[in-house]
Amino acid sequence: MLPKALAFDVFGTVVDWRTSIARESAGFLARIGLGTRDPAAFADAWRAQYIAAMIGMRKSGRDFVPLDVLHREMLEASLAAWGVDPASLDEALLDDWNRAWHRLDPWPDAVQGLARLKARFPIVTLSNGNVALLLNMARRAGLPWDAILGAEVSGVYKPDPRAYLRTAELLALAPGELALVAAHHGDLAAARASGLRTAFIARPDEYGGAPAPDAHHEQTWEWSATSLTDLADQLGC
Amino acid sequence: MLPKALAFDVFGTVVDWRTSIARESAGFLARIGLGTRDPAAFADAWRAQYIAAMIGMRKSGRDFVPLDVLHREMLEASLAAWGVDPASLDEALLDDWNRAWHRLDPWPDAVQGLARLKARFPIVTLSNGNVALLLNMARRAGLPWDAILGAEVSGVYKPDPRAYLRTAELLALAPGELALVAAHHGDLAAARASGLRTAFIARPDEYGGAPAPDAHHEQTWEWSATSLTDLADQLGC
Repeated sequence: MLPKALAFDVFGTVVDWRTSIARESAGFLARIGLGTRDPAAFADAWRAQYIAAMIGMRKSGRDFVPLDVLHREMLEASLAAWGVDPASLDEALLDDWNRAWHRLDPWPDAVQGLARLKARFPIVTLSNGNVALLLNMARRAGLPWDAILGAEVSGVYKPDPRAYLRTAELLALAPGELALVAAHHGDLAAARASGLRTAFIARPDEYGGAPAPDAHHEQTWEWSATSLTDLADQLGC
Repeated sequence: MLPKALAFDVFGTVVDWRTSIARESAGFLARIGLGTRDPAAFADAWRAQYIAAMIGMRKSGRDFVPLDVLHREMLEASLAAWGVDPASLDEALLDDWNRAWHRLDPWPDAVQGLARLKARFPIVTLSNGNVALLLNMARRAGLPWDAILGAEVSGVYKPDPRAYLRTAELLALAPGELALVAAHHGDLAAARASGLRTAFIARPDEYGGAPAPDAHHEQTWEWSATSLTDLADQLGC
Protein backbone atom coordinates (compact mmCIF):
# COMPACT_ATOMS: atom_id res chain seq x y z
CA MET A 1 0.00 0.00 0.00
CA LEU A 2 1.31 3.44 -0.85
CA PRO A 3 1.86 6.10 1.81
CA LYS A 4 -0.46 9.11 1.92
CA ALA A 5 2.38 11.62 2.11
CA LEU A 6 6.17 11.77 1.88
CA ALA A 7 8.39 13.51 4.44
CA PHE A 8 11.96 14.23 3.42
CA ASP A 9 15.20 14.45 5.21
CA VAL A 10 16.99 17.34 3.48
CA PHE A 11 20.73 17.59 4.28
CA GLY A 12 22.37 14.86 2.22
CA THR A 13 19.10 13.46 0.87
CA VAL A 14 17.86 16.41 -1.19
CA VAL A 15 20.86 18.74 -1.14
CA ASP A 16 24.59 18.10 -1.38
CA TRP A 17 25.75 19.87 1.78
CA ARG A 18 29.43 18.85 1.48
CA THR A 19 30.14 20.28 -1.97
CA SER A 20 28.19 23.46 -1.21
CA ILE A 21 29.74 24.08 2.23
CA ALA A 22 33.22 23.35 0.86
CA ARG A 23 32.70 25.77 -2.04
CA GLU A 24 31.40 28.52 0.25
CA SER A 25 34.04 27.86 2.88
CA ALA A 26 36.83 28.11 0.29
CA GLY A 27 35.92 31.75 -0.18
CA PHE A 28 35.60 32.51 3.53
CA LEU A 29 38.82 30.67 4.40
CA ALA A 30 40.65 32.75 1.80
CA ARG A 31 39.22 35.92 3.33
CA ILE A 32 40.62 35.04 6.77
CA GLY A 33 44.06 34.03 5.49
CA LEU A 34 43.51 30.26 5.38
CA GLY A 35 43.22 29.96 1.61
CA THR A 36 45.70 27.11 1.48
CA ARG A 37 43.67 24.80 3.75
CA ASP A 38 41.29 22.14 2.36
CA PRO A 39 37.75 23.54 2.38
CA ALA A 40 36.18 20.06 2.12
CA ALA A 41 37.97 19.09 5.32
CA PHE A 42 36.47 22.20 6.93
CA ALA A 43 33.01 21.16 5.71
CA ASP A 44 33.53 17.67 7.15
CA ALA A 45 34.70 19.06 10.49
CA TRP A 46 31.66 21.37 10.72
CA ARG A 47 29.21 18.61 9.82
CA ALA A 48 30.81 16.07 12.16
CA GLN A 49 29.98 18.35 15.06
CA TYR A 50 26.38 18.51 13.87
CA ILE A 51 26.02 14.75 13.89
CA ALA A 52 27.49 14.52 17.38
CA ALA A 53 25.23 17.33 18.60
CA MET A 54 22.04 15.73 17.30
CA ILE A 55 22.83 12.45 19.00
CA GLY A 56 23.61 14.25 22.25
CA MET A 57 20.68 16.69 22.13
CA ARG A 58 18.21 14.65 24.13
CA LYS A 59 20.68 13.79 26.85
CA SER A 60 21.85 17.35 27.30
CA GLY A 61 18.49 18.66 28.48
CA ARG A 62 19.17 21.90 26.63
CA ASP A 63 16.12 23.85 25.53
CA PHE A 64 15.40 23.74 21.81
CA VAL A 65 17.23 26.32 19.75
CA PRO A 66 17.03 26.64 15.95
CA LEU A 67 19.69 24.89 13.91
CA ASP A 68 21.05 28.27 12.77
CA VAL A 69 22.14 28.82 16.38
CA LEU A 70 23.79 25.41 16.65
CA HIS A 71 25.47 25.82 13.26
CA ARG A 72 26.96 29.09 14.44
CA GLU A 73 28.33 27.54 17.63
CA MET A 74 29.79 24.70 15.56
CA LEU A 75 31.31 27.11 13.06
CA GLU A 76 33.07 28.93 15.87
CA ALA A 77 34.26 25.65 17.38
CA SER A 78 35.52 24.47 13.99
CA LEU A 79 37.43 27.71 13.52
CA ALA A 80 38.91 27.43 16.99
CA ALA A 81 40.03 23.88 16.18
CA TRP A 82 41.79 25.28 13.13
CA GLY A 83 43.59 27.85 15.24
CA VAL A 84 41.36 30.86 14.53
CA ASP A 85 39.77 32.87 17.33
CA PRO A 86 36.25 33.53 16.05
CA ALA A 87 36.04 36.66 18.23
CA SER A 88 38.72 38.17 16.01
CA LEU A 89 36.49 37.89 12.93
CA ASP A 90 33.90 40.28 11.57
CA GLU A 91 30.35 39.51 12.71
CA ALA A 92 28.93 40.00 9.21
CA LEU A 93 31.45 37.50 7.81
CA LEU A 94 30.60 34.89 10.42
CA ASP A 95 26.87 35.39 9.88
CA ASP A 96 27.20 35.10 6.11
CA TRP A 97 29.39 32.00 6.44
CA ASN A 98 26.83 30.42 8.77
CA ARG A 99 24.10 31.11 6.24
CA ALA A 100 25.95 28.97 3.71
CA TRP A 101 23.61 26.25 5.03
CA HIS A 102 20.72 28.28 3.54
CA ARG A 103 22.41 28.11 0.13
CA LEU A 104 23.00 24.40 -0.42
CA ASP A 105 22.64 23.09 -3.96
CA PRO A 106 20.28 20.21 -4.67
CA TRP A 107 21.49 16.86 -5.98
CA PRO A 108 21.00 16.82 -9.79
CA ASP A 109 17.85 14.64 -9.59
CA ALA A 110 16.20 16.47 -6.69
CA VAL A 111 14.12 19.22 -8.28
CA GLN A 112 12.71 17.00 -11.01
CA GLY A 113 12.20 14.10 -8.61
CA LEU A 114 10.32 16.24 -6.08
CA ALA A 115 8.13 17.76 -8.80
CA ARG A 116 7.15 14.28 -10.00
CA LEU A 117 6.51 12.97 -6.49
CA LYS A 118 4.49 16.10 -5.64
CA ALA A 119 2.07 15.40 -8.46
CA ARG A 120 0.87 12.35 -6.55
CA PHE A 121 1.85 12.86 -2.90
CA PRO A 122 2.04 15.79 -0.51
CA ILE A 123 5.76 16.40 0.00
CA VAL A 124 7.00 18.02 3.22
CA THR A 125 10.33 18.46 4.93
CA LEU A 126 11.13 16.43 8.05
CA SER A 127 14.51 17.98 8.64
CA ASN A 128 16.49 19.29 11.57
CA GLY A 129 16.91 22.51 9.63
CA ASN A 130 14.95 25.46 10.98
CA VAL A 131 12.06 26.95 9.04
CA ALA A 132 13.91 30.05 7.80
CA LEU A 133 16.87 27.96 6.64
CA LEU A 134 14.68 25.50 4.75
CA LEU A 135 12.51 28.24 3.28
CA ASN A 136 15.51 30.20 2.00
CA MET A 137 17.06 27.02 0.60
CA ALA A 138 13.82 26.03 -1.13
CA ARG A 139 13.35 29.43 -2.75
CA ARG A 140 16.95 29.50 -4.00
CA ALA A 141 17.06 25.91 -5.22
CA GLY A 142 13.46 25.58 -6.45
CA LEU A 143 12.39 22.84 -4.03
CA PRO A 144 8.58 22.74 -4.28
CA TRP A 145 7.61 21.73 -0.72
CA ASP A 146 3.96 21.61 0.23
CA ALA A 147 4.92 22.43 3.81
CA ILE A 148 8.06 22.94 5.88
CA LEU A 149 7.84 20.70 8.92
CA GLY A 150 10.38 18.97 11.14
CA ALA A 151 12.46 19.76 14.19
CA GLU A 152 11.68 23.43 14.80
CA VAL A 153 7.95 23.01 14.30
CA SER A 154 7.99 19.86 16.47
CA GLY A 155 10.22 21.42 19.14
CA VAL A 156 12.64 18.45 19.15
CA TYR A 157 15.42 17.24 16.89
CA LYS A 158 15.55 13.95 15.05
CA PRO A 159 16.14 11.18 16.04
CA ASP A 160 13.79 11.98 18.93
CA PRO A 161 10.61 10.01 18.11
CA ARG A 162 8.48 13.09 18.76
CA ALA A 163 9.93 14.76 15.67
CA TYR A 164 8.54 11.98 13.46
CA LEU A 165 5.24 11.58 15.32
CA ARG A 166 4.47 15.30 15.49
CA THR A 167 5.05 15.62 11.74
CA ALA A 168 2.53 12.85 11.07
CA GLU A 169 0.10 14.48 13.52
CA LEU A 170 0.35 17.87 11.79
CA LEU A 171 -0.51 16.13 8.52
CA ALA A 172 -3.50 14.44 10.24
CA LEU A 173 -1.99 11.07 9.36
CA ALA A 174 -1.33 7.91 11.33
CA PRO A 175 2.43 7.25 11.50
CA GLY A 176 2.06 4.31 9.12
CA GLU A 177 0.47 6.56 6.50
CA LEU A 178 3.62 8.69 6.28
CA ALA A 179 6.91 7.64 4.70
CA LEU A 180 10.27 9.18 5.55
CA VAL A 181 12.56 9.58 2.53
CA ALA A 182 16.18 9.75 3.66
CA ALA A 183 19.73 8.89 2.68
CA HIS A 184 20.60 7.95 6.26
CA HIS A 185 20.01 4.55 7.81
CA GLY A 186 20.00 6.01 11.33
CA ASP A 187 17.23 8.46 10.46
CA LEU A 188 15.19 5.75 8.76
CA ALA A 189 15.66 3.37 11.70
CA ALA A 190 14.31 6.02 14.09
CA ALA A 191 11.38 6.72 11.76
CA ARG A 192 10.58 3.00 11.56
CA ALA A 193 10.72 2.68 15.34
CA SER A 194 8.03 5.39 15.46
CA GLY A 195 5.83 3.52 12.99
CA LEU A 196 6.62 5.48 9.82
CA ARG A 197 7.32 3.80 6.53
CA THR A 198 10.75 4.20 5.03
CA ALA A 199 12.34 5.00 1.66
CA PHE A 200 16.12 4.97 1.32
CA ILE A 201 17.91 7.12 -1.25
CA ALA A 202 21.52 6.10 -1.92
CA ARG A 203 23.86 9.10 -1.86
CA PRO A 204 27.30 7.48 -2.06
CA ASP A 205 28.99 10.84 -2.61
CA GLU A 206 27.51 12.52 0.46
CA TYR A 207 30.71 12.19 2.49
CA GLY A 208 33.05 12.54 -0.48
CA GLY A 209 33.42 8.78 -0.73
CA ALA A 210 34.09 8.23 2.97
CA PRO A 211 31.77 5.72 4.70
CA ALA A 212 28.54 7.00 6.26
CA PRO A 213 28.68 7.26 10.06
CA ASP A 214 25.37 5.39 10.48
CA ALA A 215 26.04 2.38 8.22
CA HIS A 216 25.42 0.02 11.17
CA HIS A 217 21.72 0.98 11.12
CA GLU A 218 21.27 -0.48 7.62
CA GLN A 219 18.12 -2.59 7.21
CA THR A 220 15.79 -3.58 4.42
CA TRP A 221 13.57 -0.56 3.86
CA GLU A 222 10.17 -0.53 2.17
CA TRP A 223 11.69 1.31 -0.76
CA SER A 224 15.30 1.72 -1.81
CA ALA A 225 16.21 4.02 -4.70
CA THR A 226 19.26 5.51 -6.35
CA SER A 227 17.71 8.97 -6.72
CA LEU A 228 14.47 10.88 -6.19
CA THR A 229 13.55 10.30 -9.83
CA ASP A 230 14.12 6.56 -9.30
CA LEU A 231 11.81 6.75 -6.26
CA ALA A 232 9.23 8.53 -8.42
CA ASP A 233 9.47 5.65 -10.90
CA GLN A 234 8.99 3.10 -8.12
CA LEU A 235 5.98 4.93 -6.69
CA GLY A 236 4.32 5.23 -10.10
CA CYS A 237 4.68 9.02 -10.35
CA MET B 1 10.54 50.25 3.34
CA LEU B 2 9.23 46.98 2.03
CA PRO B 3 8.62 43.99 4.31
CA LYS B 4 10.95 41.00 4.06
CA ALA B 5 8.11 38.47 3.90
CA LEU B 6 4.33 38.37 3.59
CA ALA B 7 2.08 36.30 5.87
CA PHE B 8 -1.48 35.73 4.71
CA ASP B 9 -4.76 35.29 6.40
CA VAL B 10 -6.50 32.64 4.30
CA PHE B 11 -10.27 32.29 5.00
CA GLY B 12 -11.87 35.27 3.28
CA THR B 13 -8.58 36.83 2.17
CA VAL B 14 -7.30 34.16 -0.24
CA VAL B 15 -10.31 31.84 -0.52
CA ASP B 16 -14.04 32.52 -0.74
CA TRP B 17 -15.24 30.35 2.15
CA ARG B 18 -18.91 31.41 1.90
CA THR B 19 -19.57 30.44 -1.71
CA SER B 20 -17.63 27.18 -1.33
CA ILE B 21 -19.25 26.13 1.96
CA ALA B 22 -22.69 27.03 0.65
CA ARG B 23 -22.14 25.00 -2.52
CA GLU B 24 -20.87 21.98 -0.59
CA SER B 25 -23.56 22.30 2.07
CA ALA B 26 -26.29 22.38 -0.58
CA GLY B 27 -25.37 18.82 -1.50
CA PHE B 28 -25.12 17.60 2.08
CA LEU B 29 -28.35 19.32 3.13
CA ALA B 30 -30.14 17.60 0.25
CA ARG B 31 -28.75 14.25 1.39
CA ILE B 32 -30.20 14.69 4.89
CA GLY B 33 -33.59 15.86 3.70
CA LEU B 34 -33.06 19.62 4.10
CA GLY B 35 -32.70 20.39 0.40
CA THR B 36 -35.20 23.23 0.58
CA ARG B 37 -33.18 25.21 3.15
CA ASP B 38 -30.79 28.04 2.18
CA PRO B 39 -27.24 26.66 2.06
CA ALA B 40 -25.67 30.13 2.27
CA ALA B 41 -27.52 30.68 5.55
CA PHE B 42 -26.04 27.41 6.77
CA ALA B 43 -22.55 28.58 5.76
CA ASP B 44 -23.11 31.85 7.62
CA ALA B 45 -24.32 30.03 10.74
CA TRP B 46 -21.30 27.73 10.70
CA ARG B 47 -18.82 30.58 10.21
CA ALA B 48 -20.48 32.80 12.83
CA GLN B 49 -19.67 30.16 15.43
CA TYR B 50 -16.07 30.15 14.30
CA ILE B 51 -15.71 33.87 14.81
CA ALA B 52 -17.23 33.64 18.27
CA ALA B 53 -14.98 30.70 19.15
CA MET B 54 -11.77 32.45 18.13
CA ILE B 55 -12.61 35.48 20.21
CA GLY B 56 -13.42 33.28 23.20
CA MET B 57 -10.49 30.86 22.81
CA ARG B 58 -8.04 32.64 25.08
CA LYS B 59 -10.57 33.13 27.85
CA SER B 60 -11.74 29.54 27.81
CA GLY B 61 -8.39 28.10 28.87
CA ARG B 62 -9.05 25.12 26.61
CA ASP B 63 -5.96 23.32 25.33
CA PHE B 64 -5.19 23.91 21.68
CA VAL B 65 -7.00 21.61 19.27
CA PRO B 66 -6.73 21.81 15.46
CA LEU B 67 -9.37 23.80 13.62
CA ASP B 68 -10.72 20.60 12.04
CA VAL B 69 -11.86 19.58 15.53
CA LEU B 70 -13.51 22.95 16.20
CA HIS B 71 -15.14 22.99 12.77
CA ARG B 72 -16.65 19.58 13.49
CA GLU B 73 -18.07 20.72 16.81
CA MET B 74 -19.51 23.81 15.12
CA LEU B 75 -20.98 21.72 12.31
CA GLU B 76 -22.79 19.57 14.83
CA ALA B 77 -24.00 22.62 16.73
CA SER B 78 -25.20 24.23 13.50
CA LEU B 79 -27.09 21.08 12.58
CA ALA B 80 -28.65 20.92 16.03
CA ALA B 81 -29.74 24.54 15.68
CA TRP B 82 -31.45 23.54 12.44
CA GLY B 83 -33.29 20.73 14.18
CA VAL B 84 -31.05 17.85 13.11
CA ASP B 85 -29.53 15.47 15.66
CA PRO B 86 -25.96 14.98 14.37
CA ALA B 87 -25.78 11.61 16.14
CA SER B 88 -28.44 10.40 13.69
CA LEU B 89 -26.16 11.06 10.72
CA ASP B 90 -23.56 8.86 9.10
CA GLU B 91 -20.02 9.49 10.38
CA ALA B 92 -18.55 9.45 6.88
CA LEU B 93 -21.03 12.11 5.75
CA LEU B 94 -20.23 14.37 8.70
CA ASP B 95 -16.49 13.94 8.16
CA ASP B 96 -16.76 14.71 4.46
CA TRP B 97 -18.96 17.75 5.15
CA ASN B 98 -16.45 19.00 7.70
CA ARG B 99 -13.67 18.64 5.14
CA ALA B 100 -15.47 21.08 2.87
CA TRP B 101 -13.16 23.60 4.58
CA HIS B 102 -10.24 21.80 2.88
CA ARG B 103 -11.88 22.39 -0.50
CA LEU B 104 -12.45 26.13 -0.57
CA ASP B 105 -12.06 27.90 -3.90
CA PRO B 106 -9.67 30.85 -4.21
CA TRP B 107 -10.87 34.32 -5.11
CA PRO B 108 -10.31 34.86 -8.85
CA ASP B 109 -7.18 36.99 -8.35
CA ALA B 110 -5.57 34.82 -5.67
CA VAL B 111 -3.46 32.29 -7.57
CA GLN B 112 -2.01 34.84 -9.97
CA GLY B 113 -1.53 37.40 -7.22
CA LEU B 114 0.30 34.96 -4.94
CA ALA B 115 2.54 33.81 -7.80
CA ARG B 116 3.53 37.39 -8.53
CA LEU B 117 4.11 38.25 -4.87
CA LYS B 118 6.13 35.04 -4.39
CA ALA B 119 8.59 36.09 -7.07
CA ARG B 120 9.76 38.88 -4.77
CA PHE B 121 8.71 37.90 -1.22
CA PRO B 122 8.50 34.68 0.76
CA ILE B 123 4.78 34.01 1.14
CA VAL B 124 3.48 32.00 4.10
CA THR B 125 0.12 31.34 5.69
CA LEU B 126 -0.73 32.96 9.01
CA SER B 127 -4.11 31.33 9.35
CA ASN B 128 -6.13 29.67 12.07
CA GLY B 129 -6.54 26.71 9.73
CA ASN B 130 -4.59 23.60 10.72
CA VAL B 131 -1.67 22.39 8.63
CA ALA B 132 -3.48 19.47 6.99
CA LEU B 133 -6.43 21.70 6.06
CA LEU B 134 -4.21 24.39 4.53
CA LEU B 135 -2.02 21.85 2.75
CA ASN B 136 -5.00 20.08 1.19
CA MET B 137 -6.51 23.42 0.21
CA ALA B 138 -3.26 24.62 -1.35
CA ARG B 139 -2.77 21.45 -3.39
CA ARG B 140 -6.34 21.55 -4.68
CA ALA B 141 -6.43 25.27 -5.44
CA GLY B 142 -2.82 25.75 -6.56
CA LEU B 143 -1.79 28.14 -3.79
CA PRO B 144 2.02 28.28 -3.97
CA TRP B 145 2.93 28.82 -0.29
CA ASP B 146 6.57 28.81 0.71
CA ALA B 147 5.56 27.54 4.15
CA ILE B 148 2.38 26.77 6.08
CA LEU B 149 2.54 28.59 9.40
CA GLY B 150 -0.02 30.02 11.77
CA ALA B 151 -2.15 28.85 14.66
CA GLU B 152 -1.38 25.13 14.81
CA VAL B 153 2.36 25.60 14.43
CA SER B 154 2.27 28.45 16.98
CA GLY B 155 0.01 26.56 19.39
CA VAL B 156 -2.41 29.50 19.74
CA TYR B 157 -5.17 31.01 17.64
CA LYS B 158 -5.25 34.51 16.23
CA PRO B 159 -5.86 37.14 17.55
CA ASP B 160 -3.56 35.95 20.36
CA PRO B 161 -0.36 38.00 19.85
CA ARG B 162 1.77 34.87 20.11
CA ALA B 163 0.35 33.61 16.81
CA TYR B 164 1.79 36.65 15.01
CA LEU B 165 5.05 36.81 16.95
CA ARG B 166 5.81 33.09 16.65
CA THR B 167 5.29 33.27 12.88
CA ALA B 168 7.83 36.09 12.62
CA GLU B 169 10.21 34.16 14.87
CA LEU B 170 9.98 31.02 12.72
CA LEU B 171 10.90 33.17 9.72
CA ALA B 172 13.84 34.61 11.69
CA LEU B 173 12.36 38.09 11.22
CA ALA B 174 11.68 40.95 13.58
CA PRO B 175 7.91 41.59 13.78
CA GLY B 176 8.31 44.81 11.79
CA GLU B 177 9.95 42.93 8.93
CA LEU B 178 6.80 40.84 8.39
CA ALA B 179 3.53 42.10 6.91
CA LEU B 180 0.16 40.46 7.49
CA VAL B 181 -2.07 40.45 4.43
CA ALA B 182 -5.71 40.14 5.46
CA ALA B 183 -9.25 41.12 4.54
CA HIS B 184 -10.18 41.59 8.19
CA HIS B 185 -9.62 44.76 10.18
CA GLY B 186 -9.66 42.87 13.49
CA ASP B 187 -6.87 40.55 12.35
CA LEU B 188 -4.81 43.46 11.05
CA ALA B 189 -5.33 45.42 14.27
CA ALA B 190 -4.00 42.49 16.31
CA ALA B 191 -1.04 42.10 13.95
CA ARG B 192 -0.24 45.80 14.24
CA ALA B 193 -0.45 45.64 18.03
CA SER B 194 2.25 42.94 17.85
CA GLY B 195 4.47 45.11 15.66
CA LEU B 196 3.74 43.57 12.28
CA ARG B 197 3.09 45.67 9.21
CA THR B 198 -0.31 45.47 7.62
CA ALA B 199 -1.84 45.11 4.15
CA PHE B 200 -5.61 45.17 3.76
CA ILE B 201 -7.37 43.38 0.91
CA ALA B 202 -10.95 44.49 0.32
CA ARG B 203 -13.29 41.51 -0.05
CA PRO B 204 -16.74 43.13 -0.10
CA ASP B 205 -18.41 39.87 -1.10
CA GLU B 206 -16.98 37.81 1.75
CA TYR B 207 -20.21 37.88 3.74
CA GLY B 208 -22.49 37.92 0.73
CA GLY B 209 -22.87 41.68 0.95
CA ALA B 210 -23.59 41.74 4.69
CA PRO B 211 -21.33 44.00 6.78
CA ALA B 212 -18.12 42.53 8.21
CA PRO B 213 -18.31 41.79 11.94
CA ASP B 214 -15.02 43.60 12.64
CA ALA B 215 -15.63 46.86 10.77
CA HIS B 216 -15.10 48.82 14.02
CA HIS B 217 -11.37 47.89 13.90
CA GLU B 218 -10.88 49.78 10.64
CA GLN B 219 -7.72 51.92 10.54
CA THR B 220 -5.33 53.25 7.93
CA TRP B 221 -3.11 50.32 7.02
CA GLU B 222 0.34 50.52 5.40
CA TRP B 223 -1.15 49.08 2.23
CA SER B 224 -4.76 48.80 1.07
CA ALA B 225 -5.61 46.90 -2.08
CA THR B 226 -8.63 45.65 -3.96
CA SER B 227 -7.08 42.26 -4.77
CA LEU B 228 -3.85 40.31 -4.43
CA THR B 229 -2.87 41.33 -7.94
CA ASP B 230 -3.44 44.97 -6.96
CA LEU B 231 -1.18 44.39 -3.92
CA ALA B 232 1.43 42.91 -6.27
CA ASP B 233 1.23 46.08 -8.35
CA GLN B 234 1.65 48.25 -5.26
CA LEU B 235 4.66 46.24 -4.02
CA GLY B 236 6.36 46.39 -7.43
CA CYS B 237 6.01 42.67 -8.16
